[in-house]
Amino acid sequence: MTLAQALFAPRAVALVGASGDAAKNSARPLRFLKKHGYAGRIVPINASRSQVLGERTFASLAEVPGAIDHAFIMTPGDSVERAIEECGARGVPVATIFSDGFADAGPEGAARQARLIARARELGVRVLGPNSMGLVDVPGRVALTVNAVLEMDALPAGTTSFVSHSGTMLGTVLSRGAARGLGFAKLVSVGNESDIGTGELVELLAEDPGTKVILLFLETVRDAARLAAAARKALAAGKPVVAYKLGRSRLGAALARSHTGALAGEDTALAAYFRDCGIMRVDQLETLIEIAPLLSGRTPPDLPRAARVAVVTTTGGGAASVVDRLGLCGIETVAPDSESPIIDLTMTATAGRYTAALEDLLASPQCDGVLAVVGSSAQFHPQLAVEPIVRSKRNAKPLAVFLTPHAERSLALLAGRGVAAFRTPEACADALAAYFAWRSPGRRAAAASAAWPPDLPRRGPLDEAQALKLLASLGIPVVEHAIAQPPGYAHAIPYPVAAKGLSAEVLHKTEAGAVCLGIADRPGLDREIRAMLERIPAARGILVQRMESGLAEAIVGYRDDPVVGPIVLVGAGGTLAEIYRDYALRVAPVSEEEAAVMIGEVKGFATLRGYRGLPRGDVRALAQAVAALSRLALVSGRPVAEAEINPLIVKREGVVAVDGLVVMKE
Amino acid sequence: MTLAQALFAPRAVALVGASGDAAKNSARPLRFLKKHGYAGRIVPINASRSQVLGERTFASLAEVPGAIDHAFIMTPGDSVERAIEECGARGVPVATIFSDGFADAGPEGAARQARLIARARELGVRVLGPNSMGLVDVPGRVALTVNAVLEMDALPAGTTSFVSHSGTMLGTVLSRGAARGLGFAKLVSVGNESDIGTGELVELLAEDPGTKVILLFLETVRDAARLAAAARKALAAGKPVVAYKLGRSRLGAALARSHTGALAGEDTALAAYFRDCGIMRVDQLETLIEIAPLLSGRTPPDLPRAARVAVVTTTGGGAASVVDRLGLCGIETVAPDSESPIIDLTMTATAGRYTAALEDLLASPQCDGVLAVVGSSAQFHPQLAVEPIVRSKRNAKPLAVFLTPHAERSLALLAGRGVAAFRTPEACADALAAYFAWRSPGRRAAAASAAWPPDLPRRGPLDEAQALKLLASLGIPVVEHAIAQPPGYAHAIPYPVAAKGLSAEVLHKTEAGAVCLGIADRPGLDREIRAMLERIPAARGILVQRMESGLAEAIVGYRDDPVVGPIVLVGAGGTLAEIYRDYALRVAPVSEEEAAVMIGEVKGFATLRGYRGLPRGDVRALAQAVAALSRLALVSGRPVAEAEINPLIVKREGVVAVDGLVVMKE
Repeated sequence: MTLAQALFAPRAVALVGASGDAAKNSARPLRFLKKHGYAGRIVPINASRSQVLGERTFASLAEVPGAIDHAFIMTPGDSVERAIEECGARGVPVATIFSDGFADAGPEGAARQARLIARARELGVRVLGPNSMGLVDVPGRVALTVNAVLEMDALPAGTTSFVSHSGTMLGTVLSRGAARGLGFAKLVSVGNESDIGTGELVELLAEDPGTKVILLFLETVRDAARLAAAARKALAAGKPVVAYKLGRSRLGAALARSHTGALAGEDTALAAYFRDCGIMRVDQLETLIEIAPLLSGRTPPDLPRAARVAVVTTTGGGAASVVDRLGLCGIETVAPDSESPIIDLTMTATAGRYTAALEDLLASPQCDGVLAVVGSSAQFHPQLAVEPIVRSKRNAKPLAVFLTPHAERSLALLAGRGVAAFRTPEACADALAAYFAWRSPGRRAAAASAAWPPDLPRRGPLDEAQALKLLASLGIPVVEHAIAQPPGYAHAIPYPVAAKGLSAEVLHKTEAGAVCLGIADRPGLDREIRAMLERIPAARGILVQRMESGLAEAIVGYRDDPVVGPIVLVGAGGTLAEIYRDYALRVAPVSEEEAAVMIGEVKGFATLRGYRGLPRGDVRALAQAVAALSRLALVSGRPVAEAEINPLIVKREGVVAVDGLVVMKE
Repeated sequence: MTLAQALFAPRAVALVGASGDAAKNSARPLRFLKKHGYAGRIVPINASRSQVLGERTFASLAEVPGAIDHAFIMTPGDSVERAIEECGARGVPVATIFSDGFADAGPEGAARQARLIARARELGVRVLGPNSMGLVDVPGRVALTVNAVLEMDALPAGTTSFVSHSGTMLGTVLSRGAARGLGFAKLVSVGNESDIGTGELVELLAEDPGTKVILLFLETVRDAARLAAAARKALAAGKPVVAYKLGRSRLGAALARSHTGALAGEDTALAAYFRDCGIMRVDQLETLIEIAPLLSGRTPPDLPRAARVAVVTTTGGGAASVVDRLGLCGIETVAPDSESPIIDLTMTATAGRYTAALEDLLASPQCDGVLAVVGSSAQFHPQLAVEPIVRSKRNAKPLAVFLTPHAERSLALLAGRGVAAFRTPEACADALAAYFAWRSPGRRAAAASAAWPPDLPRRGPLDEAQALKLLASLGIPVVEHAIAQPPGYAHAIPYPVAAKGLSAEVLHKTEAGAVCLGIADRPGLDREIRAMLERIPAARGILVQRMESGLAEAIVGYRDDPVVGPIVLVGAGGTLAEIYRDYALRVAPVSEEEAAVMIGEVKGFATLRGYRGLPRGDVRALAQAVAALSRLALVSGRPVAEAEINPLIVKREGVVAVDGLVVMKE
């Protein structure tokens, strides 16, 4: 029996703590399993009753005859541990734990959860939850959940599966889907993800013949590497993965030491992560519900330019409400062979004309996708309104439909024929934007690695001279510099110079008074060294650097993010990256080509690209430096927590790092 | 008979061009009027039939006995003009024109429309349209429209009225509203607005006892001054006005000559305009439909700080989907007397506990509004789910409800009790954000005016010396300067200086080679003057300016916008305003206090506010300069089309304008 079988197709389920009070949550799984036609054996476990809701109960799992494939545990407090022991003793391969009070309830609960899972591993019991609302296999008629949405009499079956951190969202997705004729395959509430997590479930769904599109509702990412691998596997199997992720408005600021850390807030790092593993991201909740038909059977378009969408409509205002938002997403509206960007049939629509216009657009090489908008007729004449659309040949190109009135029958007719239909202009534009932004997963050269300079420690703090040595070893041009030592602090760098107190303990050198720029001559340097040593008595020497200038400054950063792993960042220098959040971020390492794309995303680098006749900077050398720093991800053991060049000076020819910060792990 | 009566409560309507073919659009008004219980007299005008749909027809308006209050014209081509003549002859006070082919159809149509309206004015006939789908008064049972939404058997009546540039949207709003129990009062499709426009309709609705909230669907603004006055009138009558405006992604770039023009694209100028006249703006289409109960009876909160919203929920994920978006809008989530920002009753919800939590929040002085989220129970137990909410005392504070499942009965129950309920987390957050951003209309000192320097022309181009004189006359500090004249080009400005070729014909001086900065001495100046006169032979002299430096540069601009009238802009200097769209914009004139608020919105001015220990700039002097420039709006006759200071140099103490551009009208 595989994990997937035990989870989604158990021959017998035990309901531990099943209540006889039909009003209670813990009575629901029994009711729902029966109501929706579960074909296997249902075994309620309840020590204080001989039967619940007409089913014979057992006092404990130990007493149940025959094999149990899946236990659903609803008992409170310590009895969860007891139930897991019994699962182990009886050889139950999977337990779903609805009970809460574990990692969802502070550090003590987290410790309790860790103990529980350690024991479950010993016993060979796989665990979904705790704090999971359970799961549903709609075509398989397994409604093993406490989610009230199963009160619905019939659930439409489909080929879209759903994994969610929020149990409630199972109900949201199922009920809203049903109202517009969208069916589902498997739906799982992962709860605390103590054992079976989102990544492993996506792996199972990638192998599931009943699943064609995978939707995720994420509050966080707990198993980034596994989810990334699973998403790649799903894509390889022709199954798009789409995420709606909470937490866009919060920042992982507590984790930040360098600027890179502050900029790579949780959400921007996650956006880079999703992009890298080919997971589409949607902005609006209902997009997640409505997007599946748009994606089913499709692969990433990997468009090298702005997407072009053609529009046919029976209402100008309705089409404009979508087109306006597409424009905000950078998607162009085009009309092949016409002057207006929208083919508006408001006063002249017939089924024949609509069909002809639609067929023309779907066949045209001048657009990447088609938007069809239908007005009032969708409400009162659903068949007439959607017939031209469902008849159209729409394999080559995505087709999205927006209906302006309240028109559930039309939505259902379209859904039934596999056409993506949207209730709001915002979700419609969001879905098209997500599709066109969809990229194939980044390729990794598996054998690539980067060397660590043999004379640098692999643990403990590095001072700036060591940081510059590391940068140089990666192939990044660094400023001409020397370490001036007492008593004479001699050096051979031509004036003017910059001086910095060398100490691995001082992270923010400017604020600590450990930096002095533009020193004109030797007497000036002597004065600054004396002043600096008073402020930084522990300095092991003075780093003397040549003063450099160029056309612009950049910040280039690397970070081994605790959530998504190595990332690389490039942003406009000075205060621009911070004030305007003007930077681009990717999962590391990146190629020079990808680094060039990142540089193109940074608005402030307009000044390097010939803006207003300004001289052009060496964008290629900048891209090489970004790619070089990102190779820290390839050093064996990944000893670096964060590295930052701020600024990297960009010249007409070449770049030079004038300030390096490296923070090691530990 | 008032215009409002003739429009919305006609005692008799003539349907000019009423078809006998029930399938045609032009048969609809007759069907709809009868179906929805119109109590007045219906007179179809159709020369080729003696009756249509059971009603006796007349061959022309001239033959109809008795008074006609409103004619609905559906005939094609030139017959519209004939119908208007007949309206004039018969004394019909209002004609609604459904026919198209006027300003909606290019310059020829626009000319035809101008002739039609000129004639209608002579005849004393007011016109709605052309290209109008008509209007509906739901409580008054007047369904004078071709919009198919009237096929609905019953329309819920309410106190929200709607004015729309898109006729289709009447159907969108009515059908989507009906599906969630939201009723409407008056709905008007304004079409081309050749005569009766949005502004006049808002005036009528401000006086309408049946209207409490006014919604606008706008494709443009054709009568900005009248709409602004009407919105103020509506607000004074306690009626909030809300707009959904298309065209956010387009720029009025063709209108731009100065930077101010390029930055003040149509949409940012409109945003300033809406703010100034107290019109709320929503981002999502369904917000427009759902927001009315949140606003009914409310006045602008005029919050001086970020809004704080408290949340009670039976689903953590559902609440988070709204809270996440509120955060993106800058709205804080707070929980009085609790550690978590969300009161989550997921596992413990009872009607009693929910009511108690809700009452606490509604009574708490620590939040400005309350969000109540309900999960699955809203779908299956509507009464139980919404009872605690409708029972709550919610007069003092806005309450928004989001239901996570598909739950139309709960939505209708809430709507029926006047509670604002939202179908999507996005519309819910959008509505709260729009409400909290709502400001009372800007106050205008009616008697204020600004003098025009007597020695400056009021027409024709101004050169930079004249521009600086105008700026100085407004009270803005300008750079020390002199006009050096041939043959010797003598001046008394201390070196280093800047030199500019003086010509009112050259708008972009730098590009034309008419500017040279940092000239060190007299020989250098002589060289530059010779070179400059070769490039600009028409220069009337050389403007010599003292070189100035400061902490930062600002751009300050004024523009008499063709759509919304005078506006003022302040942005970060250099390339920042353009690259990052980092500027604030208001309707002019502004007070110094409002200018200070604008400066606070410009991110790049962080460097003037003590960012990272940098010295602070004279923000007050900057605000004075912005307010001063904005007073160009008070010059009688408003002769200035655009004025721009770029840059205004901001110092530790004071500011100084070093470059002035003034473009006159004509």
